Amino acid sequence: MKRYIFLIAVLAVVLSSCSEKKNVITVNTPERPAGQESVLGLRTEPLETVRIGVVGLGMRGGSAVDRLTFVPDCSITAICDIEQDRVDRNAARLEAKGIAEVLTFGGEAESWKELCESPEVDLVYICTDWKNHVPIALYAMECGKHVAIEVPAATTLDEIWALIDMSEKTRRHCMMLENCVYDFFELSTLAMAQEGVFGEVIHVEGAYHHCLDPFWDEYWESWRLEFNKEHRGDVYPTHGIGPVCQVLNMHRGDRMKTLVSMDTKPCNGPRIYELKNGVACPEFKQGDQTSTLIRTEKGKTMLIQHDVMTPRPYDRMYQVVGTDGYAGKYPVRQYCLRETAGLESGYDALGTEKIYSGEALTELQARYPNPLLTPEFEELAKSVGGHGGMDFIMDYRLVYCLHNGLPLDMDVYDMAEWCCISELSRISLENGSMPVEVPDFTRGEWDRINGFSYSF
Amino acid sequence: MKRYIFLIAVLAVVLSSCSEKKNVITVNTPERPAGQESVLGLRTEPLETVRIGVVGLGMRGGSAVDRLTFVPDCSITAICDIEQDRVDRNAARLEAKGIAEVLTFGGEAESWKELCESPEVDLVYICTDWKNHVPIALYAMECGKHVAIEVPAATTLDEIWALIDMSEKTRRHCMMLENCVYDFFELSTLAMAQEGVFGEVIHVEGAYHHCLDPFWDEYWESWRLEFNKEHRGDVYPTHGIGPVCQVLNMHRGDRMKTLVSMDTKPCNGPRIYELKNGVACPEFKQGDQTSTLIRTEKGKTMLIQHDVMTPRPYDRMYQVVGTDGYAGKYPVRQYCLRETAGLESGYDALGTEKIYSGEALTELQARYPNPLLTPEFEELAKSVGGHGGMDFIMDYRLVYCLHNGLPLDMDVYDMAEWCCISELSRISLENGSMPVEVPDFTRGEWDRINGFSYSF
Repeated sequence: MKRYIFLIAVLAVVLSSCSEKKNVITVNTPERPAGQESVLGLRTEPLETVRIGVVGLGMRGGSAVDRLTFVPDCSITAICDIEQDRVDRNAARLEAKGIAEVLTFGGEAESWKELCESPEVDLVYICTDWKNHVPIALYAMECGKHVAIEVPAATTLDEIWALIDMSEKTRRHCMMLENCVYDFFELSTLAMAQEGVFGEVIHVEGAYHHCLDPFWDEYWESWRLEFNKEHRGDVYPTHGIGPVCQVLNMHRGDRMKTLVSMDTKPCNGPRIYELKNGVACPEFKQGDQTSTLIRTEKGKTMLIQHDVMTPRPYDRMYQVVGTDGYAGKYPVRQYCLRETAGLESGYDALGTEKIYSGEALTELQARYPNPLLTPEFEELAKSVGGHGGMDFIMDYRLVYCLHNGLPLDMDVYDMAEWCCISELSRISLENGSMPVEVPDFTRGEWDRINGFSYSF
Repeated sequence: MKRYIFLIAVLAVVLSSCSEKKNVITVNTPERPAGQESVLGLRTEPLETVRIGVVGLGMRGGSAVDRLTFVPDCSITAICDIEQDRVDRNAARLEAKGIAEVLTFGGEAESWKELCESPEVDLVYICTDWKNHVPIALYAMECGKHVAIEVPAATTLDEIWALIDMSEKTRRHCMMLENCVYDFFELSTLAMAQEGVFGEVIHVEGAYHHCLDPFWDEYWESWRLEFNKEHRGDVYPTHGIGPVCQVLNMHRGDRMKTLVSMDTKPCNGPRIYELKNGVACPEFKQGDQTSTLIRTEKGKTMLIQHDVMTPRPYDRMYQVVGTDGYAGKYPVRQYCLRETAGLESGYDALGTEKIYSGEALTELQARYPNPLLTPEFEELAKSVGGHGGMDFIMDYRLVYCLHNGLPLDMDVYDMAEWCCISELSRISLENGSMPVEVPDFTRGEWDRINGFSYSF
């Protein structure tokens, strides 16, 4: 009899674990180590001058060096690259601008360690290839530095948790350099959303649609194509998801809860690989196009897409669907708001809502200014440039907040939420598009802050 | 000992059924009843004049009556509506055009039965509310008539299988009146896809984004809002999915295999319901926005969306992503093809592909004419109208094929594939966005026909 009861108990456990696992895949959320606290709203000691060390002087790093010379209250005190001649070229360019006192590190795979250890550096600004982001950032924080990391800061959940834990333990800022949240249409639309112009925002879309055909050769040792070869899933989600997460107040009153992903077979990926390497690559993992749907705790949805393989117009989608209005950026910028009067009804009258584009759009935006964008500042940003100005605004805000000891616009949990799509989408794809739970990276504090805001 | 073995066997069955169910939900595919054959490529006896009986003279039916008078080789021989005054109004309108010999049926809930039984009718053209589509169509086919049914022809899998079985048993055509496959941009793009202009098409998108605020009161007894109240899921997928399924050659060499759906919470739906009915409706089922991802046997993906609740620009998405090119219809029509020469590379040069819009688009389209669209015919279609002409092209093709005894452009399996999204998306949503298998409605013959084509 006892044996029966035992077997029935086993059966019950099996059944319940089956039914539990049936509907969603869960990943581990490690407990917060003892003695560590949340860095939500982290403020650190104000810095009279933010002394910046830039690691990785290739595509993004070189332009960062140039841009940062225009940002007030900071100075570039150190630069580093694995290739010595890049270091020399950048040092020479800085010297030509009258900035001569720059420490230079380079030539070795771990030259960045010296930069991280330097007492002349407050902020390590990391623009290396993706796989070196996290080792450098962890070491820099251990050395007591704040870190800013190019996108995607991390590519696995383990890396993400390591960054969170290190930031929480060392009380250092860990920000991802997600520039697209500072593009002008996104800044305006965020301000409008916060004013309630779109009613309750219930669905958003973001993407990285960018045919990289002309760029594959520009990455050091072709690391980017290699990464796409080795990884199925949306490996570059942050430009698409960042701006719409700010609109939806992620971990500031809502959080991502479930995700499903679907991709096409790999077509152009292996074709490009063969073209570059002269050998066929049937094991190329990334599908040319990946779509991911995410549902939040509060019942909103997000669509995030990735396609760097097919020839199509550059497009980050950026759509905001609300109960009272709509915003869309690509291929033409437009807003659509409910007509309050004069509805031209009738069976063949499709689309009786009021659409704002061109001048009407500019006038509408002007009624809801984003606090970051004074006309003078917008002009300055556009003159410095960097993807039209958004890169400069990003650098400016980073330095401004560190200089004043304010919480940064993007914290380590934003980094985590925006980067986790990479591994979670892979898990969903490898399990036939099964739903996957998104971890709460704040470990229980996603509802503590009431809405996204900038600190001044 | 035997009891142990029995219990272990039970355990094994439970475990295997668990693991089987874990990754995908399957729905039943009923076996084909004995004595019934596929209607793929069905040809029926040519009809000198296609005699049409129209059932349902409300929003879509009235305009169909008007349009059909312009279509050669057919005549309207009967009309029917539950409301007698609609019958009278339509009969009077026909008489004013010199068409006096029209049988009229109406006033009773089942007046349509008499129309179906009439020997003066070859084709029953069904424009009623959604829930009456299938009973009328089944009865009409039993009476030996061909049927054409407004969208969505069916709203459940049971209804879909009933239509398939009846069409296969009676050898009568059962076509859904999906007009959007005949819109001009879609026709051009389909022709271009078939010519290989976009390379291999790997991802497509379609949607029904149409704020129905001005229309809710026009549906008889408010049936459409009631339907949305009672049904979660994409209840109106056919305009979005139809055109892109033709591009992907669904059941003509490929087939939909897996689907996942995600929706927002209901917001405007219950608000509108309360506004119309004066009582709150917390049980309103349909989310304001629903997104569905579908993967095909051949590794292509589709994104289908539905939103009739929020104020946004009318939009059916219609995007075609191929290995060598791209087409997008909304909000502006554009094609994008790989630049074969003169690539302007460089780090800040986003979007070096060649985009065709405006006149360049028209010139490109002209190089790949759709066989349906001679210039004279296009002019005629636009002059008759019906959503700009596409409704006329649809009627014209339906009558043309029946008149000549040719396979129709859309068969009962197209109807099935395009309509099944409604129930399958609901199943996915009610199971936390679990993947759901899409049945093979051809029951094993999806690979028999090589690509979509028109018969002449």
